Amino acid sequence: MEDMQLLLNVVWTLIAAFLVYFMQAGFAMVEAGFTRAKNAGNIIMKNMMDFVIGTLFYFVIGFSIMFGASAGGFLGTSGFFNPTSLADANGLFNGLPIGVFMIFQTVFCATSATIVSGAMAERTKFLAYLIYSACISVFIYPVSGHWIWGGGWLYSLGFHDFAGSTAVHMVGGTCALVGAKILGPRIGKYDKNGKPNAFPGHNIPIGALGVFILWFCWFGFNCGSTVAATTTLGDIAMTTNLAAAASTMVTLIFTWMKYGKPDVSMTLNGSLAGLVAITAGCDVVSNYEAILIGAIAGLFIVLAIEFVDRKLKVDDPVGAIGVHGFCGFLGTVLTGLFGTGCSLSTQLIGVFSVLAYVLIMAFLIFTIIDKTIGLRVSSIEEEDGLDVHEHGSSAYANFRLHDDR
Amino acid sequence: MEDMQLLLNVVWTLIAAFLVYFMQAGFAMVEAGFTRAKNAGNIIMKNMMDFVIGTLFYFVIGFSIMFGASAGGFLGTSGFFNPTSLADANGLFNGLPIGVFMIFQTVFCATSATIVSGAMAERTKFLAYLIYSACISVFIYPVSGHWIWGGGWLYSLGFHDFAGSTAVHMVGGTCALVGAKILGPRIGKYDKNGKPNAFPGHNIPIGALGVFILWFCWFGFNCGSTVAATTTLGDIAMTTNLAAAASTMVTLIFTWMKYGKPDVSMTLNGSLAGLVAITAGCDVVSNYEAILIGAIAGLFIVLAIEFVDRKLKVDDPVGAIGVHGFCGFLGTVLTGLFGTGCSLSTQLIGVFSVLAYVLIMAFLIFTIIDKTIGLRVSSIEEEDGLDVHEHGSSAYANFRLHDDR
Amino acid sequence: MEDMQLLLNVVWTLIAAFLVYFMQAGFAMVEAGFTRAKNAGNIIMKNMMDFVIGTLFYFVIGFSIMFGASAGGFLGTSGFFNPTSLADANGLFNGLPIGVFMIFQTVFCATSATIVSGAMAERTKFLAYLIYSACISVFIYPVSGHWIWGGGWLYSLGFHDFAGSTAVHMVGGTCALVGAKILGPRIGKYDKNGKPNAFPGHNIPIGALGVFILWFCWFGFNCGSTVAATTTLGDIAMTTNLAAAASTMVTLIFTWMKYGKPDVSMTLNGSLAGLVAITAGCDVVSNYEAILIGAIAGLFIVLAIEFVDRKLKVDDPVGAIGVHGFCGFLGTVLTGLFGTGCSLSTQLIGVFSVLAYVLIMAFLIFTIIDKTIGLRVSSIEEEDGLDVHEHGSSAYANFRLHDDR
Repeated sequence: MEDMQLLLNVVWTLIAAFLVYFMQAGFAMVEAGFTRAKNAGNIIMKNMMDFVIGTLFYFVIGFSIMFGASAGGFLGTSGFFNPTSLADANGLFNGLPIGVFMIFQTVFCATSATIVSGAMAERTKFLAYLIYSACISVFIYPVSGHWIWGGGWLYSLGFHDFAGSTAVHMVGGTCALVGAKILGPRIGKYDKNGKPNAFPGHNIPIGALGVFILWFCWFGFNCGSTVAATTTLGDIAMTTNLAAAASTMVTLIFTWMKYGKPDVSMTLNGSLAGLVAITAGCDVVSNYEAILIGAIAGLFIVLAIEFVDRKLKVDDPVGAIGVHGFCGFLGTVLTGLFGTGCSLSTQLIGVFSVLAYVLIMAFLIFTIIDKTIGLRVSSIEEEDGLDVHEHGSSAYANFRLHDDR
Repeated sequence: MEDMQLLLNVVWTLIAAFLVYFMQAGFAMVEAGFTRAKNAGNIIMKNMMDFVIGTLFYFVIGFSIMFGASAGGFLGTSGFFNPTSLADANGLFNGLPIGVFMIFQTVFCATSATIVSGAMAERTKFLAYLIYSACISVFIYPVSGHWIWGGGWLYSLGFHDFAGSTAVHMVGGTCALVGAKILGPRIGKYDKNGKPNAFPGHNIPIGALGVFILWFCWFGFNCGSTVAATTTLGDIAMTTNLAAAASTMVTLIFTWMKYGKPDVSMTLNGSLAGLVAITAGCDVVSNYEAILIGAIAGLFIVLAIEFVDRKLKVDDPVGAIGVHGFCGFLGTVLTGLFGTGCSLSTQLIGVFSVLAYVLIMAFLIFTIIDKTIGLRVSSIEEEDGLDVHEHGSSAYANFRLHDDR
Repeated sequence: MEDMQLLLNVVWTLIAAFLVYFMQAGFAMVEAGFTRAKNAGNIIMKNMMDFVIGTLFYFVIGFSIMFGASAGGFLGTSGFFNPTSLADANGLFNGLPIGVFMIFQTVFCATSATIVSGAMAERTKFLAYLIYSACISVFIYPVSGHWIWGGGWLYSLGFHDFAGSTAVHMVGGTCALVGAKILGPRIGKYDKNGKPNAFPGHNIPIGALGVFILWFCWFGFNCGSTVAATTTLGDIAMTTNLAAAASTMVTLIFTWMKYGKPDVSMTLNGSLAGLVAITAGCDVVSNYEAILIGAIAGLFIVLAIEFVDRKLKVDDPVGAIGVHGFCGFLGTVLTGLFGTGCSLSTQLIGVFSVLAYVLIMAFLIFTIIDKTIGLRVSSIEEEDGLDVHEHGSSAYANFRLHDDR
């Protein structure tokens, strides 16, 4: 009987891992669709490569920092270059064979990394982005991941972040904020009075496809975080779906009231906002609480994106900072308010600690990259598009495009 | 042992539910790809919002009408606003935890709703469409769903609609027929002699991607309708796949003979026709019967789409009425002819009852919407495209488009 | 307990089969995206139809050739037109119900068939391609499939091709080589000095989406080839993912060094190269060996594609011959070097035997088609694009395209 439960857990966890892998396609389509045609090949390459680099670096180092023997609850210290040697000492792997647990953790790490490419789109040097990808997979994600999921100090405190509103999304969103801030806005984004201009996305259907793919895969992301087949999986699917629906609905209505028309790309971001926000507490809130969390996120995302754009003057082409950073924060805090058995103060300690850690580390990493090889392409490269300069190609060779300088 | 079977049923049903969710992406791509670029953002928003609205309204009301305590076999009457309180009194949930069963039913409901957006594309007011979405999720789908799957009168009669040729597809297709009829054709669709003009789809690759996604997800739709892991699942996958293949093949050959060239969009609709037609009886027909059902559907869809277009003079931009309405009807009837243990007369009673109910309800709902807030956008909005007027944006900002007024 | 294991195997194998089906979408997007806009509808139709024809012909004939009673280890001889009558005599079905096993094998067969359309894109007559599709599903794939997986002579020898580097990919890639060779290059591909010109793909985002879809589905392809739920599934997912990541990384670096810029479409092919190469041995190599195999494939693919393009002067628009043919060969041989319990000499015997068989059969089939109905469209059709001549339509009706004659 135990054997069958184990095998069923293996099957379930793997299928969830496959779905979480497929989020890469969702992010690639969202980020390509919501930016300009002249950078489409480049943004796709960044999405592909952060997964590739994440996979390799997380395998040799990151996994061990996250799940190796803990040094005082701050980071793992064993298993480097040989992660399959790690035993499931304290039950963190839930008894799963290490390969199953490791592929599941790998795709989570890469999800966090890939969030950043959208916020830094259309002006980041390709090489610089590759180096950042390695850094987040080694120095950032696994450390806070150890605190939360690897038996570290937040884990011990009882911090509740079921599928990663903080561990994955806020970490990625915070890196995105720091990176986009240091990078500066795209040419023409702000006029001389500091008023932001919109650069509309070049391919809304594939951007929307990306959102549908992400929603689909989020069922694996949230329900799969049980790493076990249980009778409660359906409840997690329900809260996940209801929060996303409520958030989308509220964003639609709010933008309709605020701007006079229901906004397409903001509404699509509204879906993602709800998904991010419910991720921390999807297993400990009721269906109506999920609707409430989603509804709050649906309002919050509009304000957050405007805040980043207008107050912080940080140019985030796809809204990733708002969606993953702000709503990841929000969801973690709301889990403290609504989640059964959760403590608001613990949630606040957790989310602020991780925020502080990631802010500092991301600042150091992006600053070092910026001061050495440089984060940003030249203005000519930016105006012509990254595809032609960085890759010598065009994403849409047969189409006639507007000159969008 | 029983526990393991239950957990396996949970896992299987959830994965199927995730796949059925992903049909939303398929519909969105099909409908966007097969209509014009100027309405691409709008059609995607309609696809997104009917899922969102379906999720919320089905949760608070629809599920209870479908699975609440039956009032004489006509509709459920308990569980409103608290659907998780419903117990699996008469085994309809197959012993599944309510959350598992509910997410599975939710995505089915939303599939039915989303069929309509294609047929009403390119001219329907956004607000009007949102209201319709709520109505089908409350007043239409759950009622006939109660009859068929909720222990209602057709269920008691032995009506066989395994995965919903009638309950999902014909219901959606019939609403589509009524909606598109009341709405009237797009400007320029019929010349002064009533001869139809074709408006070719603007993005065949994403339209085709939608069909591939739908075929993929249909394995979840049909095989998952067991809501249990059984040894017969493979047979259902086989009949589903063979019917779709046969239908596609026949449509290809038939259009080749009829038009002189194998038609791309009709052939893609041929795939969907076979999938819709096999849905009712996929569990009770042999592989060769599935091929026969598919082949009949492959012929029928061409005639049905022409009939709608030329005789009924109903403008259905994507062929949804033919695919889901006519082939849903066809598949239900053919299940009576070929299905082991099925009765043709019962199938006819079922399919005509549901047809009559949906025709009446859809007529009432669309007429009320039309007479109050209005179903249709102005001719200027229609000619400029719904994206710019309804949403203030363009789906393809960087591309040069033909002026397609 | 045995029953539960069987049901779990059923669920696992079916989900894998669904994922392998979805590879069709991946191939369609890759092939459409990496070719020209004027042929996009045609290439999608070829992808759809080879699956359709493969499904039907594999059902009535192919499956029986592959898994029927063996005639001396060379081909199956029973079950024709009634494949469900075949019993699991020698355990090849792993005890699975025949429908489960058959749908799984069907989607593998169709994967092999669909590889060819990319290499022969933009100039092959539609009818000729349909006839080829039937032939590979009857005369080629099932025969070598019988040798390897159907209890035939290579199976008896201990040839190890776990998920089909040879059986699926090299078979498809070899057919692609022969077909593209006989067909000749596209007009303008080689200048009068034999120097190849590049025709850049028209839609890199959907091409990249295809690669992401393929990577996602490859988890089903490789892990599902256990046709059973086992505790080793995670290890297979790990080797698959690491090989693909390593290959992508190496291709990126190698093209960067070689061409001065990291090449987008070559890097995306690098991902597929790693996936193809690890397919044969994903169950018998360690994680580091998988990285090594991937790294070798990442180098090899660049050289292979250049070799086909420049030395063989075979025009392969999407690089399918290099990816599936050469890397399928490579992966099979490397399994002999690195795989636990594998023999290099057996691997060489297997891969060369299959290569010889497929070369001969493909040569015969394509030559007969060429001499009878003709393989290639007229030069006017080719220059105008296959969409308008073969199907009377355009894939992008609303977009302004460059005249790309």
